[in-house]
Amino acid sequence: MLCRMPPQEGPLGRLRRGHEELVLDLLRRHGRLSRGELGRHSGLSRTTLYDIVATLVHDGAIVVSAPAPALRRRGRPVETLTLNPHAGQAIGIDFARRAVHVAAVNVAHEVIGSASEPHDAGLGWQERVDIADRLVGKLAEGALRLGALNAIGVGVVGPVADGGGTGSEPPSRTGTGSSQGADGDTARRLRHSDEPLALLRARFDVPVLLDNNTRLAALAEATWGAAAGDQDVLYLRLSHGVGGGLVVGGSLHRGAWGLSGELGHIRVEPAGRRCSCGATGCLETVASVGAVLDAHRAAGGEADQLPAFLARVEAGDPAALGVLEAVGTRIGSVLAAVCNAVGPGVIVLSGELTQAGAALFEPVERALGADVVPLARHRVDLRKAALNEAGGALGAIALVLHESPLLSRYPARPDAARPARSASTSPADASPDSEETP
Amino acid sequence: MLCRMPPQEGPLGRLRRGHEELVLDLLRRHGRLSRGELGRHSGLSRTTLYDIVATLVHDGAIVVSAPAPALRRRGRPVETLTLNPHAGQAIGIDFARRAVHVAAVNVAHEVIGSASEPHDAGLGWQERVDIADRLVGKLAEGALRLGALNAIGVGVVGPVADGGGTGSEPPSRTGTGSSQGADGDTARRLRHSDEPLALLRARFDVPVLLDNNTRLAALAEATWGAAAGDQDVLYLRLSHGVGGGLVVGGSLHRGAWGLSGELGHIRVEPAGRRCSCGATGCLETVASVGAVLDAHRAAGGEADQLPAFLARVEAGDPAALGVLEAVGTRIGSVLAAVCNAVGPGVIVLSGELTQAGAALFEPVERALGADVVPLARHRVDLRKAALNEAGGALGAIALVLHESPLLSRYPARPDAARPARSASTSPADASPDSEETP
Repeated sequence: MLCRMPPQEGPLGRLRRGHEELVLDLLRRHGRLSRGELGRHSGLSRTTLYDIVATLVHDGAIVVSAPAPALRRRGRPVETLTLNPHAGQAIGIDFARRAVHVAAVNVAHEVIGSASEPHDAGLGWQERVDIADRLVGKLAEGALRLGALNAIGVGVVGPVADGGGTGSEPPSRTGTGSSQGADGDTARRLRHSDEPLALLRARFDVPVLLDNNTRLAALAEATWGAAAGDQDVLYLRLSHGVGGGLVVGGSLHRGAWGLSGELGHIRVEPAGRRCSCGATGCLETVASVGAVLDAHRAAGGEADQLPAFLARVEAGDPAALGVLEAVGTRIGSVLAAVCNAVGPGVIVLSGELTQAGAALFEPVERALGADVVPLARHRVDLRKAALNEAGGALGAIALVLHESPLLSRYPARPDAARPARSASTSPADASPDSEETP
Repeated sequence: MLCRMPPQEGPLGRLRRGHEELVLDLLRRHGRLSRGELGRHSGLSRTTLYDIVATLVHDGAIVVSAPAPALRRRGRPVETLTLNPHAGQAIGIDFARRAVHVAAVNVAHEVIGSASEPHDAGLGWQERVDIADRLVGKLAEGALRLGALNAIGVGVVGPVADGGGTGSEPPSRTGTGSSQGADGDTARRLRHSDEPLALLRARFDVPVLLDNNTRLAALAEATWGAAAGDQDVLYLRLSHGVGGGLVVGGSLHRGAWGLSGELGHIRVEPAGRRCSCGATGCLETVASVGAVLDAHRAAGGEADQLPAFLARVEAGDPAALGVLEAVGTRIGSVLAAVCNAVGPGVIVLSGELTQAGAALFEPVERALGADVVPLARHRVDLRKAALNEAGGALGAIALVLHESPLLSRYPARPDAARPARSASTSPADASPDSEETP
């Protein structure tokens, strides 16, 4: 029999995982099936099916139950199989700049818990993983079964290498104008930070998938948030940095080198301000929280923090509204250009700047209406993000569910089990708590 | 036994197609396998495998052969199965404005022939399908076996509806400035032209997949052309119109409404010329062949046709070179913006304007170098298209191979077997022979 344990990577390992996914999918759709029914539905041979079911039962993904005595007829009772509703199939961890967020889902893909803990910006990876471990432990006291943990998804700030099991580092550039140097340090920047991956694998002994937390937040919005159920989503985060993400056909989009979603670095002012990425006039230089506050001051405003600025917006201050009108128009034009290229059904805006509400969204809508190709113009829906700070952790779970629901069965070679291409982030991506760490 | 003939659509039909694909894939990788070996490699039960193999043999996709007598041992000789090298698995037809192009591949996905025939621009669908039929017949005299035909891919000019088995129409707008009206006729434009689909189905009795021929050319370049083997490709066609396409993860990208790849309608000049799409200042208004000739005349040039203009470029005429410098910079900036969003590995430029060579490509490269986010800057490769006029037909085949290699086994409900979402085109897309038809 091929595909025997120990499982192999390569075509046979993939084939086996495909069979496992088929069995889980049939149980997800039918609820409860006997082995005989599973065999007929799946087309798998008895031997293969026995083997697959044994593994899934061993891993806690499915459970076996005998029928109630009253229902038994002659002969041996027919056992039935169901998904294990208590199995914590995956957890997601978002290592934001100043907090760790954790969430978990069961094998039915229902979110069964989440937890957060803030920390100082400069905390090391060991300490941050300790926090994650503690938070996961809290969840495990409830519905989570660590024994059935299949994989961990992780969100981080900063670029992530394409290919292989690399991680991320707290990026070397700041959000306040330091140049990262164009290309010389690309390799260095993409090659760092296996550290959180190694620490998490040592702690939990399961495969770890990693991506940028802004892109994961995009995936989360498309899975559980403002664009739940939509297959093609364009996501833009307007925070201390400006970053983005794309969901294409229901999956996180990465591009050839893991370098997609860099919406904050689309040039909007050829002779504009210097951007953190090294270029000039990027969207981030006009649409970040800092840039908006600068523009407001330049227009005579006095707000030096976002809450004060938002209060001016609320009060109808013409200078504040004028700034948002101009910024919203720029944002809408960039979104329209990307829309014309990728045709999303939904655009999700997130980040602190969206707290400005209609004063921001209306000019964005107007610019979309003017610049999106007429055939698509009234088909694209602009929405405010729904998940906020939990987005990264939920997106990390979504990553696991989308890309490796059964990776934990192959713990021997977690790196090989990872998708061939990994991901990157906007160099200027910044979540609410993502100011530069030392 | 579930999954018995007649085949059903829905989950069971998909499951069966999955099994068929698995068997074909194993034969593609291993070359020659016995039924026993196929069973072990696939994990399928004897009953299921017998059924699948019988169907594939009946359809001509695979052939059964006994070993040479010298190799026979005691007992019944073991039959082996291979792909049928002579089976014409799919054909592609590109209904361009003034020609029909046809190509065919065998079950091993090798192109086994192609043919073209020009016609007047105003020809009706019946006559164009007659031409296609004749061209297919020519191929069938060679290596193509119509009995093993699985599906037909079709490329057309103009928008294609999302969902269902709709087709396309010769679009109502021209490439010379007529407004299509913004949104009022969207539905009308997307709902037309089941005609070529119905005619082709009646003629060949197999499912027909349809998409815009510019986008199909993008897929063809990623399959057999300048970006062969690349998974993430951005394609821009600079012709009498300007259109584009995206290949994401090896598949044709469509977007939520089938409205993606509209690169020609990204706005580059807010106060620019009126575009055929109804907006102003689109890339097409500066980068189409007509726009380039206009700009050259405005700069004192006298070339009123592309060949004359290209001769001026060749001769080093400063006015002609200056026009291409400006146009190339605009093109590069738009490509850079889209690059930052979708992170392609390769950009392919096609269309007549690319005959200008370095005078066009160099400014495009420079703009890409300036505007692509630094981390990705030197990873994106700009290339000239390789397939030219055959691209649409080859892309139509690639569509079939990517999305429905086995659709012909389900002829009863070809519409249901089509992908849920279909595609659209740039309203201003125009291939070399795609000037407006009456």
